[in-house]
Amino acid sequence: MSGYIPGLEGITAAQTQISMVDGANGRLVYQGYVIADLAEEMSCEAVAFLLWTGRLPTRAELDALSLELAGSRTLTPAATSSLNALPVDTDPMDVLRSVVSIQGVEHRLAKPTVALAIHATASFPTILAMFHRHQRGLDPIKPRADLGHAANYLYMLTGEEARPELVRALNTYLVLLADHGMNASTFTARVIASTESDLTSCLVGAIGALKGPAHGGAPSAVIEQLEQIGAADDPEKWMRDARTRKVKFMGFGHRLYRVYDPRAKILKAMCERMNPKFFALASKVEEIALRLLHEEHPERPQSTNVEFYSAGVLQAIGLPKEYFSPTFAVSRVAGWSAHVLEQAANNRIIRPQSEYIGPEPRKPVPLGERG
Amino acid sequence: MSGYIPGLEGITAAQTQISMVDGANGRLVYQGYVIADLAEEMSCEAVAFLLWTGRLPTRAELDALSLELAGSRTLTPAATSSLNALPVDTDPMDVLRSVVSIQGVEHRLAKPTVALAIHATASFPTILAMFHRHQRGLDPIKPRADLGHAANYLYMLTGEEARPELVRALNTYLVLLADHGMNASTFTARVIASTESDLTSCLVGAIGALKGPAHGGAPSAVIEQLEQIGAADDPEKWMRDARTRKVKFMGFGHRLYRVYDPRAKILKAMCERMNPKFFALASKVEEIALRLLHEEHPERPQSTNVEFYSAGVLQAIGLPKEYFSPTFAVSRVAGWSAHVLEQAANNRIIRPQSEYIGPEPRKPVPLGERG
Repeated sequence: MSGYIPGLEGITAAQTQISMVDGANGRLVYQGYVIADLAEEMSCEAVAFLLWTGRLPTRAELDALSLELAGSRTLTPAATSSLNALPVDTDPMDVLRSVVSIQGVEHRLAKPTVALAIHATASFPTILAMFHRHQRGLDPIKPRADLGHAANYLYMLTGEEARPELVRALNTYLVLLADHGMNASTFTARVIASTESDLTSCLVGAIGALKGPAHGGAPSAVIEQLEQIGAADDPEKWMRDARTRKVKFMGFGHRLYRVYDPRAKILKAMCERMNPKFFALASKVEEIALRLLHEEHPERPQSTNVEFYSAGVLQAIGLPKEYFSPTFAVSRVAGWSAHVLEQAANNRIIRPQSEYIGPEPRKPVPLGERG
Repeated sequence: MSGYIPGLEGITAAQTQISMVDGANGRLVYQGYVIADLAEEMSCEAVAFLLWTGRLPTRAELDALSLELAGSRTLTPAATSSLNALPVDTDPMDVLRSVVSIQGVEHRLAKPTVALAIHATASFPTILAMFHRHQRGLDPIKPRADLGHAANYLYMLTGEEARPELVRALNTYLVLLADHGMNASTFTARVIASTESDLTSCLVGAIGALKGPAHGGAPSAVIEQLEQIGAADDPEKWMRDARTRKVKFMGFGHRLYRVYDPRAKILKAMCERMNPKFFALASKVEEIALRLLHEEHPERPQSTNVEFYSAGVLQAIGLPKEYFSPTFAVSRVAGWSAHVLEQAANNRIIRPQSEYIGPEPRKPVPLGERG
């Protein structure tokens, strides 16, 4: 029996075919394909198929999947009325956690399947688009079966077809963030799956984990910090002062990558093309941030993480910043459900131990004699 | 870096003051008190206070906590209307997962606190009692501030005050199951907390994990199996035949206890007193099950787990079997929230690694050339 391992760092909690984070070489691999080969070539539907089944779909399989997704975009009456009952200022991550839970209620425990993964994946954009409109007092837009997953999400937000370059950018974003090894939300999904629970329970737990600012809850914070820096007379002075007050630079650092995150690299190029104003400031801030962090810790590899430039891309696509984290979930649900399927296929309950550091057992003092 | 550790068995994922499962000696300790010293003496409110704060409350603190709990028993309008929108045949675990999520939606991320733990704990019985009545087409019963946590739960189910011995039995059950080291649902809650997410997200994830039949989802299965055995002419023959078909005996075996589970011991005595008909069959089945399991695996310690006799106790209290698992959650929410508070107080993100066993990276075949 080993001692306490904080954060389970370095512990291998799963074997997986789904993805590999090759931090030393700055590579992310999905089922044997390097992310750079998928990001701008493949639809997010094809990549979801890849994650779930281990291979790329044929044309017929892709058509069937698209049809199945399009047919699963409507919320149940219970999910619809719950969504409409939520206060309009609810955090969209909480909306997603709650309405995904209700959309997936069941009478008898079902085993996770690809069909259930498709149903769940289809519902995420609908939930967010409906709530986005509900917040603004607007009627929901019915999904359109002739639009792909990314295009339909943007369509349901506004009621207008988005420009093809925006759809393509969102598609690339959805591909890039669909899976990433044993991150905290994916691990949450696998722990829940390991009790033989249902897919919805796994996804709902994963959404809750992704909400945390130490995981996926930070992309809007990138924008907020950039706005503060952009408003300052001297960005470098602002940033130096911030570090003396121990303010964290948002969008930097990752436990695994020793070199530039391959997703951030692609998103940076997209951001430069799509959001030049954001890029001008962001690339300057990036340069200063990496320099200051290196000055502080020359021994540590420092790098820009996926959240930094994805903020600029999602902004250019037209998403409000409080929808950045939930849109991360729209992407990651493909990976979460793939991991749930993999865990369920070869399961062992994930039940580590804890070390007791409380007092030695003693007799309780009766209530009358206390305090 | 170590190799893959299935189920994280033997890995210490947390240091905790909250509880210790001393499997070798058949002891369960909460914050320095042996469970047998708490189970029949303390209110579940006092034990929740103990788990959250590390000490037993004074009379004034216990009164303040009871007042606070009583004041938090009403659902929000959004939670109420969501609950009423759910199909009446929904699994009550899914109801709990969904309505706890909605009850806890927030506008800005809140740090976990004891006050939030109290609010969440207070809501669990209300949600279950309301849904129980909703399923039967009955109006909800308003909570009564003059009743304790256990008594009020039973009152809200029926609209009548339960007999004191039933209240006392439920209280003991709620104390016994309130915490149990690093089980899968508690671990789920801590993983989610480690991303700096909110308490509700942690609890919702934990409910999803508890739902799994390999964790807390099995107590109704105990009843169902006992009914089958009870209907057979020759119980031992039924059970021997079942084992040849690899049917699992429900309510036996635990990774940690080498001797009799101390909770099962207390519940067994309660069951004998409260539910003699169940006990007559169950104790016979227990004897046969332990004997047959020992014949199969003489090298393994075999024991009756907490679910076996708790089924008989919960039945005697008057709960329908589909409310056994959710009532487990009514108890465990105290422990879950204590662990979330402990994790948040001294946090490090729980992010293990995975070992990639997928194919070596290769170039994707273009869609037109596939299949």
